Amino acid sequence: MQQTICFISDFGLDDAWVGICHAIMHRECPQAWVVDLAHQIEPFDIRKGAAVAAAGVYQLPDAIHLVVVDPGVGGERRDLCLVTVSGARLVGPDNGVLLPAAERAGGVESAYALDSARLGSDAPLATFHARDIFAPAAAALACGRDPGEIGTPIDPSALVSGPFALAHREGESLAAEVIEIDRFGSLRTSVTAEQAAGLGLPGVTLEMVVGHIKLSVPTGRTFSDVPKGEIVAVVDSSGWLTLAENAGSAYERFGVEPGAHVRVRALA
Amino acid sequence: MQQTICFISDFGLDDAWVGICHAIMHRECPQAWVVDLAHQIEPFDIRKGAAVAAAGVYQLPDAIHLVVVDPGVGGERRDLCLVTVSGARLVGPDNGVLLPAAERAGGVESAYALDSARLGSDAPLATFHARDIFAPAAAALACGRDPGEIGTPIDPSALVSGPFALAHREGESLAAEVIEIDRFGSLRTSVTAEQAAGLGLPGVTLEMVVGHIKLSVPTGRTFSDVPKGEIVAVVDSSGWLTLAENAGSAYERFGVEPGAHVRVRALA
Amino acid sequence: MQQTICFISDFGLDDAWVGICHAIMHRECPQAWVVDLAHQIEPFDIRKGAAVAAAGVYQLPDAIHLVVVDPGVGGERRDLCLVTVSGARLVGPDNGVLLPAAERAGGVESAYALDSARLGSDAPLATFHARDIFAPAAAALACGRDPGEIGTPIDPSALVSGPFALAHREGESLAAEVIEIDRFGSLRTSVTAEQAAGLGLPGVTLEMVVGHIKLSVPTGRTFSDVPKGEIVAVVDSSGWLTLAENAGSAYERFGVEPGAHVRVRALA
Repeated sequence: MQQTICFISDFGLDDAWVGICHAIMHRECPQAWVVDLAHQIEPFDIRKGAAVAAAGVYQLPDAIHLVVVDPGVGGERRDLCLVTVSGARLVGPDNGVLLPAAERAGGVESAYALDSARLGSDAPLATFHARDIFAPAAAALACGRDPGEIGTPIDPSALVSGPFALAHREGESLAAEVIEIDRFGSLRTSVTAEQAAGLGLPGVTLEMVVGHIKLSVPTGRTFSDVPKGEIVAVVDSSGWLTLAENAGSAYERFGVEPGAHVRVRALA
Repeated sequence: MQQTICFISDFGLDDAWVGICHAIMHRECPQAWVVDLAHQIEPFDIRKGAAVAAAGVYQLPDAIHLVVVDPGVGGERRDLCLVTVSGARLVGPDNGVLLPAAERAGGVESAYALDSARLGSDAPLATFHARDIFAPAAAALACGRDPGEIGTPIDPSALVSGPFALAHREGESLAAEVIEIDRFGSLRTSVTAEQAAGLGLPGVTLEMVVGHIKLSVPTGRTFSDVPKGEIVAVVDSSGWLTLAENAGSAYERFGVEPGAHVRVRALA
Repeated sequence: MQQTICFISDFGLDDAWVGICHAIMHRECPQAWVVDLAHQIEPFDIRKGAAVAAAGVYQLPDAIHLVVVDPGVGGERRDLCLVTVSGARLVGPDNGVLLPAAERAGGVESAYALDSARLGSDAPLATFHARDIFAPAAAALACGRDPGEIGTPIDPSALVSGPFALAHREGESLAAEVIEIDRFGSLRTSVTAEQAAGLGLPGVTLEMVVGHIKLSVPTGRTFSDVPKGEIVAVVDSSGWLTLAENAGSAYERFGVEPGAHVRVRALA
């Protein structure tokens, strides 16, 4: 089967790097199908890169996910390939950017430190591991090579931890956080689709504490399940419990930033 | 022949959705050739989505046009496939976003309400019809299926009307409006290339009333037909009569916003 | 071999033009592989277009480089194909935007004025030479046509000069300028990788005068060769000597704009 590679970076679209990586992957594995998920992530914003990668893995679990948000390029940190319990494969730097996606996909089953020499790069450009290591690694996987052929097994417990964790139970509630604000101003939380189903979504009313704001929130399948201008909690397309305003911006309404604490419980 | 799909959305490029839809279309119809026209349309800006779609249909009349600006996703509104008199095929929500493009292509000849079950989606994700209905529908058309195989015929006269209409004659003038401001600050009006030719372009001088501003404007084939810093009216690449400043911004000069009324007549 | 086309423009991603050009190139030469380098260049910013093109040629010297930043579209200026001493092929308008890339690739060996009739466009749209001349020309080259088949040889010395020149020696120093600020706030200078190697990089300390600021700067292979928040000069992925702050923004620190004078010499 033709392999899809989902490509995420903070390279922006104003410089040549995204296109160069496309060219490299196409040369290394012409039958790979590379799709761009997001490249305008703020420079070095590991949290946002991790959030988009988690959405990508949720939507396309059998793709290869290439995630390059890499403030330490060329330095001491390792270049990784992770294989998750569910079989997803992730490529990127060892700075936590891959971990939320891996946790969404069942956790890390095996981890590899990529070896540039085995990828044909004896002297990778120190400022551009995407070109010489990450993109060739994703292409190699897409063309059927095993992670063990392009990297050395390492201890998954020694990986740099992620910028946020999945929600966890605290008493009757789930303790979570705001992962990110989406384009439409909705607040994505670290409560997974499975955890949301456990709360009784859709159809239940939630008590949500978001930052310093306490709300009673109806839930639905989609934003327009409530009238325009009203608040609703849905599991959105990225698979996270999301606080949204129908045809409006929850972010403008509440002014809550990524990282804010969230507590959620179902009202009786 | 290999089919081109022109893809427009308000998903932005900071989230995973555009790439996910590419992956879906490629899986459903590998021989389709998907090109991205615009994805950074402001959230819910049906006017802008309709304007870009109209430009796409003008330039590539035989492509399939997939337009997802959809504030009501998952709600009551219908998912559409329109076939125009000229044979263009348009896919998107029933909120008017497809109509200016359809009118540019001769008007709606037949309309279909897409049926998710016939697209293989028994339970489409309520927040992401692009993934489960619109993208699969565009891919199905690209691979040779007829609209009637994936949707139910509906009455074209019952469609939600478009965000703007083509210019119409009022006495000696054309009554129109500013559709949008382009990247270069030019003001696109709802006067079509055919209507502009009827006025005598290029070569004639126009009287244009734009908002509260009345102008006498030379016309040309291109912006540089007048000296730098001067005003010119041309039929631009999108096929609309456009008021531009050569190497400058008509928008900054006149401060007119989309929706402003326009009256145009040829001066004797 | 399958040919790569690197596509750069100031069309932005909010209008249909980039996608239209993709569709045209795919129709003209289906086996070409088009990658997008940058399209959000500020309207008419020839300097930035030239800088991205130079990076593209540095990274992918055997690709075809299509560069459309063209304030004079449809006017007197010529449509060009340039072949460089190293064999790179560049397509774009005769306004200097191709020249820094050509100089990085050994200089212009031969130049051609594109002939729309020989590209199948008897009446190219005056506002959209990208569609009717530049994109078809790039596609024709990708499918094996020679520049002489699609254009008329012209005198390379009569080309409009570039927006910046490569650094040149003045006494013990190199006289250069700031070409552009990259996404991460680093200052790219017109000192080439070869000139930087001549100064002794990496490992030497440089004296750099940038605008009105005089600095003593360590050099490295990559940004993280110095502690976070410290200044370093590296040859970055675009092949220019670049003044950067590790995990920060040299631009915010120094406030220097593109075009500022630079003098560089190695300290003993």
